[in-house]
Amino acid sequence: MNKIISHTVDLDIKFSDVDSIGIVWHGHYVRYFEDGREALGRKYGIGYSDFKKQGIVVPVVQINCDYKRMIRYEDKVQLTTTLLDTTAAKLVYEYQIKDKQTQNIIATGSSTQVFLAAESFEMMLNLPQFITDKRKEWLED
Amino acid sequence: MNKIISHTVDLDIKFSDVDSIGIVWHGHYVRYFEDGREALGRKYGIGYSDFKKQGIVVPVVQINCDYKRMIRYEDKVQLTTTLLDTTAAKLVYEYQIKDKQTQNIIATGSSTQVFLAAESFEMMLNLPQFITDKRKEWLED
Amino acid sequence: MNKIISHTVDLDIKFSDVDSIGIVWHGHYVRYFEDGREALGRKYGIGYSDFKKQGIVVPVVQINCDYKRMIRYEDKVQLTTTLLDTTAAKLVYEYQIKDKQTQNIIATGSSTQVFLAAESFEMMLNLPQFITDKRKEWLED
Amino acid sequence: MNKIISHTVDLDIKFSDVDSIGIVWHGHYVRYFEDGREALGRKYGIGYSDFKKQGIVVPVVQINCDYKRMIRYEDKVQLTTTLLDTTAAKLVYEYQIKDKQTQNIIATGSSTQVFLAAESFEMMLNLPQFITDKRKEWLED
Repeated sequence: MNKIISHTVDLDIKFSDVDSIGIVWHGHYVRYFEDGREALGRKYGIGYSDFKKQGIVVPVVQINCDYKRMIRYEDKVQLTTTLLDTTAAKLVYEYQIKDKQTQNIIATGSSTQVFLAAESFEMMLNLPQFITDKRKEWLED
Repeated sequence: MNKIISHTVDLDIKFSDVDSIGIVWHGHYVRYFEDGREALGRKYGIGYSDFKKQGIVVPVVQINCDYKRMIRYEDKVQLTTTLLDTTAAKLVYEYQIKDKQTQNIIATGSSTQVFLAAESFEMMLNLPQFITDKRKEWLED
Repeated sequence: MNKIISHTVDLDIKFSDVDSIGIVWHGHYVRYFEDGREALGRKYGIGYSDFKKQGIVVPVVQINCDYKRMIRYEDKVQLTTTLLDTTAAKLVYEYQIKDKQTQNIIATGSSTQVFLAAESFEMMLNLPQFITDKRKEWLED
Repeated sequence: MNKIISHTVDLDIKFSDVDSIGIVWHGHYVRYFEDGREALGRKYGIGYSDFKKQGIVVPVVQINCDYKRMIRYEDKVQLTTTLLDTTAAKLVYEYQIKDKQTQNIIATGSSTQVFLAAESFEMMLNLPQFITDKRKEWLED
């Protein structure tokens, strides 16, 4: 799948994100990924709130993360979130966390979400129309 | 206010509860209090799900915690949750976390919740009837 | 106690901060308070890392929070953290969370921390010298 | 890789684990996996504390999770954690979360950890001796 839209944010590492070994606890990366997804979503109109207005929820059905380096408290890191292009009824994102100074890769990951009707939790078999419309715009850019 | 019902549970300290100083991060105590409240709630029929069936939500409007000792990973600790007796339209709980072996007090706290209609989020000015009924039973015990 | 230094930050409400009632779960406010404290700490040189360099840890020994309004996902809120002035061997902070637009108060709280030697976890009975020095500067400003 | 040891625990779903859609937030599964790993670790002497006594930390370098069904508050679910057999210098676990009543699979996942010297954070190229010793016992059982 090709990349279609992408967005980079600084990650704000909290004291409570750090575990007893002195590094960011690995489980928090899943939250960072969601924060990156939502930042991109707010920019491009495909955040959780945008889906909600359409009566759609988008649960995560698959996630993975590869940890290459550790993050310590007060490290300056950035997260790039990329939506992959697909006409299938799903959202596939890729994530890359980097050290801001050295640009060393700290972690990479991906996630897949599906579309459910918010009321019935019934799976939607096609891309929602507003996503199809946006996709055309993104491809033209 | 007098104590009316009380319940003690073992706390299960998670690796991810421990911060970089090697002690349980203070913010997790608020979750422990809620876990204790829900354990008592399941026993006495006043958990979040019981309120939900009555169309009521019970948001926390006040919380406090005094930390006397630290908890380390794999410490054996217990939490006693006590509902205080009141005819006012609120739930007031007291909490006591102790070391299971020494019975030393680790922390004490309290919380206050009010009753809202689940749909409108409108404040209820009286104790819900099912709580009034239960209160009579508890006082008779 | 008088106010001595103060700092205001925007709070970034995460999707995972919101509970099943659709409001920010009350326990997260304790993390917000710590985030506010650390933002102020970075500005004034009294963050966790600054204490660590001095061989000091500053555990929270008391916390409380009064919840006046609810926060929903994507609400714009700000947190003002204020250090109170004291010559006693402790740090006392006050917190105020407000709606950015209406300036309505959402929550208020306070916390107390003590000073421990990082190695021995032994309580320090006096204000660390670097805090005493900073205090003089702040009072002169 | 073959399975070598396995352990099943009940998962205790917390109110604060549930998100605004009314299901357990997907990020919490990573914590459940760690809880399962630690429960197995306590039983077989390979928990974080056992490694720590050997001067070893075991950071997670890879994690993934496939979500097949949702978990709601008060659902009764169980987690089976299985260590895969390998002579390489890593720990590979598989996870399966099931509904206790129906035995329907809710989620599956896996994780990989490596061995670092606790002081230097230097990677160890061989299985620690105490794991090699335990492995022999497990294979004989």
